[in-house]
Amino acid sequence: MWLPALALSAFGAAPALMPLPVKMDAGAGALAIDAHFTAAATGAADPRLAAAVDRLVALVSRETGIAFAGKPAAAAEATLKVECAARAPLYPKLGEDESYQLDVTAEGAHLKAATVDGALRGLATFAQLPAPGPHGFEIPAVHIEDSPRFQWRGLMLDVSRHWMPVEVVLRNLDAMAAVKLNVFHWHRSDDQGVRVESRLYPRLQGKGSDGHFYTQAEIRRVVAFARDRGIRVIPEFDMPGHSTSWFAGYPALASAPGPYHAGSDFGVFDATMDPTREQTYAFLDAFIGEMALLFPDPFFHIGGDEVNGRQWKESAHVQAFARAHKLTQTHELQLYFNRRLQRILARHGRTMVGWDEILEPDLAKGTVIQSWRGQASLAESATKGYRGVLSWGYYLDHLSPAKFHYGVDPLAGAAAELAPEVAGRILGGEACMWTELADSETVDSRIWPRTAAIAERFWSPQAATDAASMYQRMEVVSRLIAWTGVEHRAVYGSMLGRLTGGHPAPPLRVLAEASEALGLGKRSARGIETGTPLNRFVDAIPAESETVRALELAAGRVASGSGASQTDLDLLRGAFELWMSNDAQFEALVDDNALLGELQPLSQHLAALGRAGLEALEDLAHDHKAAPDWLAARNAEIADFLKPTADVTLAAARPVKLLLDAPALAPK
Amino acid sequence: MWLPALALSAFGAAPALMPLPVKMDAGAGALAIDAHFTAAATGAADPRLAAAVDRLVALVSRETGIAFAGKPAAAAEATLKVECAARAPLYPKLGEDESYQLDVTAEGAHLKAATVDGALRGLATFAQLPAPGPHGFEIPAVHIEDSPRFQWRGLMLDVSRHWMPVEVVLRNLDAMAAVKLNVFHWHRSDDQGVRVESRLYPRLQGKGSDGHFYTQAEIRRVVAFARDRGIRVIPEFDMPGHSTSWFAGYPALASAPGPYHAGSDFGVFDATMDPTREQTYAFLDAFIGEMALLFPDPFFHIGGDEVNGRQWKESAHVQAFARAHKLTQTHELQLYFNRRLQRILARHGRTMVGWDEILEPDLAKGTVIQSWRGQASLAESATKGYRGVLSWGYYLDHLSPAKFHYGVDPLAGAAAELAPEVAGRILGGEACMWTELADSETVDSRIWPRTAAIAERFWSPQAATDAASMYQRMEVVSRLIAWTGVEHRAVYGSMLGRLTGGHPAPPLRVLAEASEALGLGKRSARGIETGTPLNRFVDAIPAESETVRALELAAGRVASGSGASQTDLDLLRGAFELWMSNDAQFEALVDDNALLGELQPLSQHLAALGRAGLEALEDLAHDHKAAPDWLAARNAEIADFLKPTADVTLAAARPVKLLLDAPALAPK
Repeated sequence: MWLPALALSAFGAAPALMPLPVKMDAGAGALAIDAHFTAAATGAADPRLAAAVDRLVALVSRETGIAFAGKPAAAAEATLKVECAARAPLYPKLGEDESYQLDVTAEGAHLKAATVDGALRGLATFAQLPAPGPHGFEIPAVHIEDSPRFQWRGLMLDVSRHWMPVEVVLRNLDAMAAVKLNVFHWHRSDDQGVRVESRLYPRLQGKGSDGHFYTQAEIRRVVAFARDRGIRVIPEFDMPGHSTSWFAGYPALASAPGPYHAGSDFGVFDATMDPTREQTYAFLDAFIGEMALLFPDPFFHIGGDEVNGRQWKESAHVQAFARAHKLTQTHELQLYFNRRLQRILARHGRTMVGWDEILEPDLAKGTVIQSWRGQASLAESATKGYRGVLSWGYYLDHLSPAKFHYGVDPLAGAAAELAPEVAGRILGGEACMWTELADSETVDSRIWPRTAAIAERFWSPQAATDAASMYQRMEVVSRLIAWTGVEHRAVYGSMLGRLTGGHPAPPLRVLAEASEALGLGKRSARGIETGTPLNRFVDAIPAESETVRALELAAGRVASGSGASQTDLDLLRGAFELWMSNDAQFEALVDDNALLGELQPLSQHLAALGRAGLEALEDLAHDHKAAPDWLAARNAEIADFLKPTADVTLAAARPVKLLLDAPALAPK
Repeated sequence: MWLPALALSAFGAAPALMPLPVKMDAGAGALAIDAHFTAAATGAADPRLAAAVDRLVALVSRETGIAFAGKPAAAAEATLKVECAARAPLYPKLGEDESYQLDVTAEGAHLKAATVDGALRGLATFAQLPAPGPHGFEIPAVHIEDSPRFQWRGLMLDVSRHWMPVEVVLRNLDAMAAVKLNVFHWHRSDDQGVRVESRLYPRLQGKGSDGHFYTQAEIRRVVAFARDRGIRVIPEFDMPGHSTSWFAGYPALASAPGPYHAGSDFGVFDATMDPTREQTYAFLDAFIGEMALLFPDPFFHIGGDEVNGRQWKESAHVQAFARAHKLTQTHELQLYFNRRLQRILARHGRTMVGWDEILEPDLAKGTVIQSWRGQASLAESATKGYRGVLSWGYYLDHLSPAKFHYGVDPLAGAAAELAPEVAGRILGGEACMWTELADSETVDSRIWPRTAAIAERFWSPQAATDAASMYQRMEVVSRLIAWTGVEHRAVYGSMLGRLTGGHPAPPLRVLAEASEALGLGKRSARGIETGTPLNRFVDAIPAESETVRALELAAGRVASGSGASQTDLDLLRGAFELWMSNDAQFEALVDDNALLGELQPLSQHLAALGRAGLEALEDLAHDHKAAPDWLAARNAEIADFLKPTADVTLAAARPVKLLLDAPALAPK
């Protein structure tokens, strides 16, 4: 097996595939991708596959900047022949064979799959292969055999806390397809809004949203768009908690009298559906029946998380009901609710999915538990016979580094101990994008590129754990998936420009590339509501800095005393000098600008880091030990600089810290 | 009058307006733009104005990153009140009153205009006003009175040589509105393609294009979209030359037997309509009648340029006709054709517009001459009684600097000598975007931001000629108009990323910011055809480098020996050191990459410039004169470096040249 990421320098010849295929062997020669490139499906005529082939051609055209001349005279004459015997089912389904085989030679490319879903995955691989070569774009000859490790590879998007227009959903589906994700989990209702048009209960969206919701036509469009990309759509309607917005229009559903309105702040709300009244279940029966017509997937997510029980405890009639039914605990009441819900779902041909909290002994065995608690919770539910998907460790809104997510395996920890037939109940995982701190402008940059690392965890062999290789490929794939339309890269420059009122400001960019945004839990969310502008520096910059990563690699080589090149030293010195001189120039921008003012300490810290880095380089160059006092002072400074400032962390401290920790500097 | 651009440092308080208003006085205080911002039209109810107000709110929301809470309870309570007594005519018309008055105080903003077009222009001004202030976004109090200098302020877009999908047209209309342009001249047919759906003559688009053309529904959509923004749409169908593509489907229209096909290369073609046959005029009569239903503007552009006459000279029947009618010269035959055409246009209620070549004594007096030859030609036609618009000096595809275009005045040169009533026939001008070397991906970056400078020439008082002020404001407006949707800034990063196959490559960006793309006439167009990929370095980078401009300003101050700051010296030194060290890092990228390989000399030249710049700074710092040999050698190098390499010019040579020319360096 040939790991392309190991070819660090001559990247022209090394396609950066993500997720890594199971098996990949380099061949001789290369296939030119020029104006004559064509692609066609052979085998069974299938309109979904034909459309996917057309999309592939358009995508490769954007990636390469080449307008291809047209269609092949005959399918057999196409540069890329896609051979698929089967036709696609009406909708993609869990457990579909997604394997494919792809051969590229100097003469052409040949993709073979048993199913349309497999062909779609192979096309996603093909789209990552073209790279500039000695004569223009080309694909180095390669033989790939590939299939997924997990069958449930999802992305959850919360469209309730911040509204996400349908275009945002569509472009993210395109990017999901590019990294072979196959489940779109659409978190459509929460305390802050019901984002669906119900014709039976129009006050759901009418009073339970700010006017932003998806019409039924838009939902059908999204489901069809996802289907065409081999992506299942699973709706989540969170209940009985996280449902305040339902009660704005239908207060009788709640366990306490209203009035209610959709929330504008965040957290765990008290409002909870009334599990004691038959009207609640009649409402849900009709509503789920209406939704089942829109969402063809057999799985239906009912949320079920974070019921704090306060309304139930404070309600006389709920407590009376609980005593009568011997349901003395909140979770027992919720279990009662869930059992009723499960019968309703079954009547509509739907299998229940819910968060950890729904796990109780009497659930139907088909139920899928989505775990935000971790592999132990997942192992427990698998042992009890339930299927599960892992989301703990994949919370994108925490803005953790990609390598953290990459290191979380659904079958690690307690799940690693399971017998194979039990472990088989762990179907995969889902990255989760909660949107307290992301709106339609910033959400792409919170999902991508880190979700590509998670997608690799779900698809590629368990042994693919080299974070350095992952990062190197992720940086490329980040740029590649931008051609699908996601705007995670595009917003960076425009949002930085906004902070200066449009004035060019290179010093701000220097600061931005030295910093990393902090996510929920690390960033102060005090006072943030749905209407709070997400237009600050922290919102503009990504969770991880490519620049800092490059500096860390160089600093690591320099600090270890082996493998460092002159280029490494130049890179570090150049960055440190830039940071030192940047502060004065940044200071000139700040005048009377509230959006930049909060960054002044950050800029001063960066200058200090530059100075410390230069001094460390100087000592290392002259084989000097560091003065103990100086070292202690610098280390104390760095600990200070790494604390949140303006809700960002000064990532630039990391490469400097590596130098300070160099054994060659350590005082005797 | 307060020229905002003069406030060079504290840009937070200085809105960068473009075009500059006629009169602008700063007031006291500032209007906060926060979540409570609202806008509403008062006065006559007009759906076009109401929609424009909604668009303004959405645009300001994007500019500031603030989601505004909603509509005002009553129009009178809106933050921005737009008062307009009149309702809009069905379509915008030449000579409409576009004046407006705008007052902003700490309490609110008040826009007054006599017409909806005037209100639209005032809204465009308002959109440029919000800037970050000490408490967030705000608008410093201001009183503005404004009206245009010229009534015809256009942008011509060639959609024949490279196809421009309707989205490209729409987003450019939005950007045009942002800088108060009011004529969209749609160059819809040329040798390379007829880009319109004709139902009478379907082979026009069927055989005369590569399948890319606008349907009639799309044309209606564009015309309505432009109308809503106060922009007239003038179609151009170039004839009798530049019409090869027509003959692919209708060879009998040509002066020589076919077969013909739409051109894939560029230049002046021989194929010309047959002016001798009645069928030609019957065809054009029916076709223009069909087009007149789509394009409501009373002006209709018939091209008329670059008829080389070869087909006419070589055709026995055309020559016989010419002799019979005493039309011995090509231009006499063309005049005959034009007169016939003019009668057809008149029958359909249309006034003829054409390029210089159509100017002949017998034209109807209402005719408008569009001059690509210059003000002398325009003055001549005005003297003869014809109206005119200037396009010479505004050819965007030449990629000239903005200051060149900015310096071209429709009423300069021979036109400056005209009596007022004659000069009044010069209606304005049009920026021209020919697309031999631009496709739908790159065209925005060839139009913007330089067209903003041209728009200012057409709108603002003649006395506004300070190029430094223009550049400073254009850099801001370039970022502002990106919020309308044009992608001139967004494509830069993605196209550079493509050159490396998606690998992050800061050294390529350093080279890009030191270089400027060369346009038609300066760039080698040899071998370029419609299908040639426009995916090279030259296509990715803009016509002007902001970085180099900043360096030129600093170098100018240093070289003159007055006004230079330590920041200037730091900026120059930092850039020169970066250029020197960049080449080794760039070299590491180039391996086996054809798209980067052509840039190697450029990168080497840049390193040499860095070295020369550092040496010059060193001499200046020590009050040394330059050694004559050294100076001669450096000047010779720079002359060499300024020659085109890989179709770009190394703009970085300019600031270095400024230092070399410093009087303090000159040998005795």
